[in-house]
Amino acid sequence: MMMLNWISEAATNLTLQHALVVPISLFVAVLCFCLLIGHLFEENRWVNESIVAILVGCIAGMILLFITKGKSSRILTFNEELFFVYLLPPIIFNAGFQVKKKQFFHNFITIMLFGVIGVFISTFIITSGSWWLFPKLNFVGLSGRDYLAIGAIFSSTDTVCTLQVLHQDETPLLYSLVFGEGVVNDATSVVLFNAVQKLDVSRLNGRSLRVIGDFLYLFSSSTALGFVAGLLTAYILKALTFGRQVPFCPKWYSQNKLIWECQRHSSVREISLMVLMAYLSYTLSELLELSGILTVFFCGILMSHYAWHNVTETSRITTRHVFATMSFIAETFIFLYVGMDALDMEKWRMTKLSFGSLMAIYSCLIFLILLGRAAFVFPLSAFANCLNRGSDRASIITFKHQVIIWWAGLMRGAVSIALAFKQFTYSGVTSDPLNATMITNTIIVVLFSTVVANKLTQLGCGSNSSEVWLEDHPSCISDVLALDGYVFGFLTKPLIRYLLPHHNTRRNKNIIIIEESGPPQEDLNMPLLSFEESAATNISRAKESFSMFMESPVYTIHKYWRMFDDAYMRPIFGGPLASHSHTQC
Amino acid sequence: MMMLNWISEAATNLTLQHALVVPISLFVAVLCFCLLIGHLFEENRWVNESIVAILVGCIAGMILLFITKGKSSRILTFNEELFFVYLLPPIIFNAGFQVKKKQFFHNFITIMLFGVIGVFISTFIITSGSWWLFPKLNFVGLSGRDYLAIGAIFSSTDTVCTLQVLHQDETPLLYSLVFGEGVVNDATSVVLFNAVQKLDVSRLNGRSLRVIGDFLYLFSSSTALGFVAGLLTAYILKALTFGRQVPFCPKWYSQNKLIWECQRHSSVREISLMVLMAYLSYTLSELLELSGILTVFFCGILMSHYAWHNVTETSRITTRHVFATMSFIAETFIFLYVGMDALDMEKWRMTKLSFGSLMAIYSCLIFLILLGRAAFVFPLSAFANCLNRGSDRASIITFKHQVIIWWAGLMRGAVSIALAFKQFTYSGVTSDPLNATMITNTIIVVLFSTVVANKLTQLGCGSNSSEVWLEDHPSCISDVLALDGYVFGFLTKPLIRYLLPHHNTRRNKNIIIIEESGPPQEDLNMPLLSFEESAATNISRAKESFSMFMESPVYTIHKYWRMFDDAYMRPIFGGPLASHSHTQC
Repeated sequence: MMMLNWISEAATNLTLQHALVVPISLFVAVLCFCLLIGHLFEENRWVNESIVAILVGCIAGMILLFITKGKSSRILTFNEELFFVYLLPPIIFNAGFQVKKKQFFHNFITIMLFGVIGVFISTFIITSGSWWLFPKLNFVGLSGRDYLAIGAIFSSTDTVCTLQVLHQDETPLLYSLVFGEGVVNDATSVVLFNAVQKLDVSRLNGRSLRVIGDFLYLFSSSTALGFVAGLLTAYILKALTFGRQVPFCPKWYSQNKLIWECQRHSSVREISLMVLMAYLSYTLSELLELSGILTVFFCGILMSHYAWHNVTETSRITTRHVFATMSFIAETFIFLYVGMDALDMEKWRMTKLSFGSLMAIYSCLIFLILLGRAAFVFPLSAFANCLNRGSDRASIITFKHQVIIWWAGLMRGAVSIALAFKQFTYSGVTSDPLNATMITNTIIVVLFSTVVANKLTQLGCGSNSSEVWLEDHPSCISDVLALDGYVFGFLTKPLIRYLLPHHNTRRNKNIIIIEESGPPQEDLNMPLLSFEESAATNISRAKESFSMFMESPVYTIHKYWRMFDDAYMRPIFGGPLASHSHTQC
Repeated sequence: MMMLNWISEAATNLTLQHALVVPISLFVAVLCFCLLIGHLFEENRWVNESIVAILVGCIAGMILLFITKGKSSRILTFNEELFFVYLLPPIIFNAGFQVKKKQFFHNFITIMLFGVIGVFISTFIITSGSWWLFPKLNFVGLSGRDYLAIGAIFSSTDTVCTLQVLHQDETPLLYSLVFGEGVVNDATSVVLFNAVQKLDVSRLNGRSLRVIGDFLYLFSSSTALGFVAGLLTAYILKALTFGRQVPFCPKWYSQNKLIWECQRHSSVREISLMVLMAYLSYTLSELLELSGILTVFFCGILMSHYAWHNVTETSRITTRHVFATMSFIAETFIFLYVGMDALDMEKWRMTKLSFGSLMAIYSCLIFLILLGRAAFVFPLSAFANCLNRGSDRASIITFKHQVIIWWAGLMRGAVSIALAFKQFTYSGVTSDPLNATMITNTIIVVLFSTVVANKLTQLGCGSNSSEVWLEDHPSCISDVLALDGYVFGFLTKPLIRYLLPHHNTRRNKNIIIIEESGPPQEDLNMPLLSFEESAATNISRAKESFSMFMESPVYTIHKYWRMFDDAYMRPIFGGPLASHSHTQC
């Protein structure tokens, strides 16, 4: 007890002297520790980095609770500015930068359907469901705005966990859809959340059209700003040829050394410019009251599509890793914080509800999330399949895939937490029991969905887990898909049969097998090439194109975009030309 | 005028709405602009990056003055926390990380002489000189503590500009000495400055010994902490073999893809760990009231000596560039701020002195800096030459080199500015005319010394300037050294002749020619190798070593350190062994 008193006093003194340095060092130390533990458990298939970060956060919180004698479990108070100004931009930018553009643009319309329309449907279901169910569970007092916010909060899926579970090279279509949806969906929920916060709920009747109009304006102008920022960066890097400055460097020392030194010098400028321009696009977008998250995402896509090809080889390697590292640190930071906050005694004491009704609320929320997601994944997949009907079979979303998409998107992550803190606290502090309950609800849902949905998806399509397990289950995908079909099949199969009369189960099975065996890249390019050849030889192009457009609109748009890109965009903004683009990504 | 009013109002409204986002976006935009201008002027030999940043800062300040109608010329108010917590650590860590260890350790004692003893001498001269001269120039009212602070402030040289003027491969000894001194010297001045701030000036008599004792404690414990942090990181990276985790990754997709993906995953962890551990060492050191700057510098040296060899190839490329980029951005940030602050009308209005006496103060300060530097460079060089007398001739600091070291170290940079703001303002704001005068003095001295000393050193030893100029002056070094000799020779030559009787001018000339023509690395290794062979064959080792130690202590210490490093340190902490270390750096 003496020791504890002493530690407690020492901690207080230290904190007073170094108001900023103490929390930073503690947090950095915990981050380092978390990183090591995460690495050690990499082989373990029941734990992933997010879960490790949350657990380490919990343990750190417990130690802090013990030292401060139950006063506080947090090192830093949550600051939504910290989150929205410093942590979110690198995560979203990296998502845009690392996404495989070919796949992303190939499935662009499907992704947009899931990420935009899907969020609207999911928000509607969660909002109306909770509005109807919460009072029945003795949880009353939330305003209409709060319910709308809950809808938006629980509609954003977590891209981080998805990346750890799905593999780009193993299941390219699934990965592209789930990841693409996750990113667009994050952006949509943030935009929707902001729209809801500005909304005057008392005069809601008839104004819903205006919300949609606002949303469309926000979406298009944010995207446009991201495009402009990305293209501008690419143009500057190409026009000034940062990486090709060798003639201006001094000549008298050995040629190899020289090039290395000069490249290094220009690399520093190139990397700085990319980082700064990306960040500038985010802050500018926020200043103009647009969605910074969408802007920075599209800026990332354009930078990796054009700007990345205009820099030196070393800069390419560096930027890829830098953006990944920044995003990784930001994510770990958020999960650590969530872990610490989960032990915040104040919030738990404040919720006056019984354990039973709390559990009921959680179950209700999780049920609504499941329902909200199912309500758009299956119909929208059917619709996307209709649009894709004439194109290559690899773009068809099979029923098994739909189930995986449904599950993979159940995870709720950093964005949900941040939005919940924004809605229900004032700079991380809340004194209202209702708000405290909603925060704890969000944390529990994130924890539960991360652990459970992660496992389900992992089972659903294999993972980077233990070697032994993988060797035992070489065809885990089809195995578990059969399991999926067993559990969920009798519920959703009739619906799917009704929606997709042209697709039978046998054909779907074949597609999965094709995707598993062959290299995925070729699968996608082969039909494209052979189709182009036959088109050129047989009939007039225009007629063919039109009939093709009617048959498979998505595929045609993608093809014309590629032609436009090769003819006009790449010569101006940089990047490999058509002949190379089939081999590179 | 209408337009101006409108802009002004719009700016005010915007600032109120987005208190944090507006200054950040503006600053990032100016940084981007500055980077582009710096790149465009890279070929110009009269401008370097620091000068560009200061000028761009000035222009941005002018525009802001115009928009805010003379109210403010700054986007951000200077926050010493911002500087010491976020901007300084990357600069110093990068300095340690990028320094060529072989050269640095080879000249370790000389660098320490310049960087530690030199700062004490220089501080003493500047403090006593200004104490004596300022009242004569009608500038009265500064306290004893202020004078001591002035000494420390103007004793830190700028490593940034030095890097842009000298070249590691062209003049390895000079580069190593000037750069090494610059870093150690920054650390020493910060430590000395902090010691001065804590000092009770009224009871100064006899306590000076205690200051030196404090300094030695700080120096040794900070260095030790840096060593521990660097070694710990190296050990963790080696023990956990982050980069060699391929067997645990999934096996079913193509081997190349697999390794790339796995490397990327582990690279992110490796880079994060290095960045976080480096930062942790800095904050921990600050928490323990040591010198974070020294700690992070030695942590950087050890990380590049051991930890860097334990990571994957991509991580190596990435970390080198990331640290350089972070440092570059931090430096540009500081110079931009200085440019903006130079136009702060308040400070200029506040100084009640006439233009003439201000000029007198500047001249006096510049004279004292020159004198203070001369007072330690020449005697300490002579002393270093004595210590190095038996070793290879490349380690001898010729008179010409001494002049270049004297000039190169005249530049004052970011650290001076930051210390001046810490001493003479309260969070970047000052209301005292004396303090305002000292801030403007510091800015003028930094501007003047950066522009002038830069040019002098550039003339003194060639630079990365315009190609044409270089082709016209292939042997600029010896040319300008002759000029140096002409100007400064008749003053210092007798002194040097007295101190260094064994060295005549002809021999010095030869050394310069050797250094210019041959690859510098070999020059240093050849004597080492041949000497080791002869030592092994002829007489007993111990006897030889002892006589060698008496003849050339520095050289022997370095040799034993190398043996110890190869035998014990590298096997534990990583890095190439002796057989490779001659070819790598």
